[in-house]
Amino acid sequence: MNPSHLLGPVLVLGSGLLGASIGLGLRAHGIDVIVSDPSPSAQAVAVDIGAGRAFDAAEYLTPELVVVAAPPDVTAQVVAGALARYPSAVVVDIASVKGSVLAELQTVESLAPTALGRYVGTHPMAGRERSGPVAARGQLFNSMPWVLCPSEASSEHAIKVAHSLAIDLDAVVFRFAPDEHDEAVALVSHLPQIMSSLVASRLADTPQHALSLAGNGLRDVTRIAASDPSLWVQILGANAPKVLEIMQGVRTDLDRLINTLSAPTAPGARLDLAQLIAEGNAGQGRIPGKHGGPAQQYSWLTVLVDDKPGQIALLLTEIGEIGVNVEDLRLDHSAGLQVGMVELSVLPSRRVALVDELTVRGWKVLQ
Amino acid sequence: MNPSHLLGPVLVLGSGLLGASIGLGLRAHGIDVIVSDPSPSAQAVAVDIGAGRAFDAAEYLTPELVVVAAPPDVTAQVVAGALARYPSAVVVDIASVKGSVLAELQTVESLAPTALGRYVGTHPMAGRERSGPVAARGQLFNSMPWVLCPSEASSEHAIKVAHSLAIDLDAVVFRFAPDEHDEAVALVSHLPQIMSSLVASRLADTPQHALSLAGNGLRDVTRIAASDPSLWVQILGANAPKVLEIMQGVRTDLDRLINTLSAPTAPGARLDLAQLIAEGNAGQGRIPGKHGGPAQQYSWLTVLVDDKPGQIALLLTEIGEIGVNVEDLRLDHSAGLQVGMVELSVLPSRRVALVDELTVRGWKVLQ
Repeated sequence: MNPSHLLGPVLVLGSGLLGASIGLGLRAHGIDVIVSDPSPSAQAVAVDIGAGRAFDAAEYLTPELVVVAAPPDVTAQVVAGALARYPSAVVVDIASVKGSVLAELQTVESLAPTALGRYVGTHPMAGRERSGPVAARGQLFNSMPWVLCPSEASSEHAIKVAHSLAIDLDAVVFRFAPDEHDEAVALVSHLPQIMSSLVASRLADTPQHALSLAGNGLRDVTRIAASDPSLWVQILGANAPKVLEIMQGVRTDLDRLINTLSAPTAPGARLDLAQLIAEGNAGQGRIPGKHGGPAQQYSWLTVLVDDKPGQIALLLTEIGEIGVNVEDLRLDHSAGLQVGMVELSVLPSRRVALVDELTVRGWKVLQ
Repeated sequence: MNPSHLLGPVLVLGSGLLGASIGLGLRAHGIDVIVSDPSPSAQAVAVDIGAGRAFDAAEYLTPELVVVAAPPDVTAQVVAGALARYPSAVVVDIASVKGSVLAELQTVESLAPTALGRYVGTHPMAGRERSGPVAARGQLFNSMPWVLCPSEASSEHAIKVAHSLAIDLDAVVFRFAPDEHDEAVALVSHLPQIMSSLVASRLADTPQHALSLAGNGLRDVTRIAASDPSLWVQILGANAPKVLEIMQGVRTDLDRLINTLSAPTAPGARLDLAQLIAEGNAGQGRIPGKHGGPAQQYSWLTVLVDDKPGQIALLLTEIGEIGVNVEDLRLDHSAGLQVGMVELSVLPSRRVALVDELTVRGWKVLQ
C-alpha cells in the first residue's frame, strides 16, 4: 500500500490532548480541520491554538475523514454516530483498547450493513504527562507508534486513509488485528501501569524519613504511577479479560515468591530467588530499541564536566568536530556540586576512537 | 557531630565495584589505602587503577578504618575477623541489609565484648549497571545517600570515623537504626526490584511482534530488571522478613484487582480501579527529588533539532551564551528520522526568557 497524503476536510470529534494534537499536526500540512467537542471551552481552546476551525452544525460537511478522539467509554457510540451522519467519510477512532470498541459497534442495529467498511480502529501510542488541548502539540506523534487495527470488514480505501493520517503526523505505522493489539498492550502498557501503581500505592503511608532513601530505581518504576485515574479506569475496564489473564500469571509468580521469602533458608529458596531475577533479565533484554525499532546496541561512555553553563555544549561541539553522532545522553549531577557526569551512547564502532580523541583533547572520560 | 577528614591508613577488604570505588575516592584525597581481595586478579586490577596499594600479609598494619566491601553473605564473618585482627581500628561494612549483619555479629562468641563498639554498619546507596573493579570510579558516591546504621553498642568515635568516610567521598549522610533502614530499603529498593523483575519476566515468552509496541512506560518500569541475580539473591535473602511483609500487602491489593477485573461491570468495579491508580498517584507524589534532596521543581521545555552531529551542541552553546544552566536533559529521537526532540529542564525563573531568546535565534521550541 502506498498511502497518499490526506486531502481533507478532516473532522476531529474531541479536542483533548490527542484530538487537538491531531488537528495541529494536520493544520501544519494545510489540511482543512474542523474540531468539535461537547465542552465549548475545550473546543474554543483547540480553535485558539490553531488545531482547526470550530464545528458549526449549520454547515454541510463532507469530510474525507472523521477522527473520533472521545473518551474510551463513549468511543463506539461516537463512531457509530459519525458513520451514520457522514455516509461518505472514513471514520477512525484512537482509543487505546480496540476489541471492545469493535464488538460494541457490531451490535449497533441502526448502522447500515456496509457502514463498518468505512471504519478502522487505530491506536496512536503517544501521550504526555499533561492533558487537555493546552498541552497539545502537532509533533506529538512524531516517530511514535501508530497501530492500525482494521477489522475484517474494513475496506482497503478506509485502511489507506487511516494510514495516511498516521503518516501525515510522522508516526511509525504498525498493523495488528484488534485482538492481537489488545493482548500486546495488556502486556507492554497495562501491566507496567498496574505494577507501577501497586508499588507507588505502598508509599502512601510511609514515613517521609524512609522515602528520603529513594533512588532512581524507585523513580523509574513509579514514574507512570502519576497517570490519570479516570482514563485508566476506562482502559483497564475495556481490556479487563486480557489484563486479567496476565495478572493471574503475576499472582502465581508472586505467590511463589512469598512462599520462598517465608522460608528463605529452605532448600531451593536461593534458586527460586535467582530464577525470578534471571527471568526478569531475560525478559528485559528482549525489549526492542526506542520507538519499536530494531534493538540497536549502543556503547556508553561517561565524561566528567564542570557543572556550569557551556561545558556540555563544549563537549558536544567537540564530539561533533570528531564526527560522532550522540545517540542518547543522560546528565547526572546535583545542583550546587562542581562536577557533573554526562553519559553518552554512540555506535559501538565509534567508541574507542571517540574516547581516545576526547582524552587527547583533555576531557576526563570514565569507561 | 563535626566529622573531620580521615587520616588513614584505610584497609578495604573486597575490591569489587564498591570497594575499588571507595579506594579510588580516598586515594584522591591522598589517604593511604590498602586493598585486599580473595581474588588475586580482582585485587591486582584495583591496584592497577589506583584504588590503593596491595595488601601484604607480612606488613604490620594499624589502620584507622577497615571497610568491609565483601559480598553480603560473608560480610558479618569478615567484619568479625577485622575487629579481631585490628584491635584499634574502626570497622564498617557496606552491605545493603543491616539487621542481619548485626544479628550475626552479636552471636560471634570469639569477639571481645567491647569489640562491637568499634563497628558501624553503613549502606552507601550507589551502584552501576556494571560490576567489578574495572567499573569503579572515585566519584561513584558523589551526592548519593550513604546511610549510617550504628548499633546501640557503636562508640561515638566509631560513628564519627564512619561519617568521615562518607563525607570524604562526597556522599549525603543519613542516619537510621539498622531495623528502620531495612524496612526503608525493603520499600524503596527491594519492592521496586521485585515488581520490575515480575513485569520483565512476563516478557520472556512474548511474540516479538507484541514487544514492538513497547514504550517508555515499559522501559522505565523494567530498567532495574537487568540487575545481577547473584547479588539480589543475597539481598532478598538477608531482608526476607521485611520484604515478605510488603509483598503480602501487594498480594492483597493484587487479589482485589483480580476480583475487580473478573467482573469489570459489577457495581463498584470502576471505583476500585480508580482507587488503585489514585493511590499510586498519591504515593508517587511523595517521592522526594534526586539524591534525597528537597524536591526542587524545574521547568521543562522541548526543542526540535535536526538529527545530525553538532545540532545539540549548537543548541547548548547558544543556551550557554544566553547564560542559562541546563539542569537535566533528555533526548528523544529515533535512528533514521530527521528530527529529534531535546527536552531541557531549567530553573523556572529562567524559562520564559530562554524560550523567547531561543525562538528569536530560530530554534523551534515546543512548550
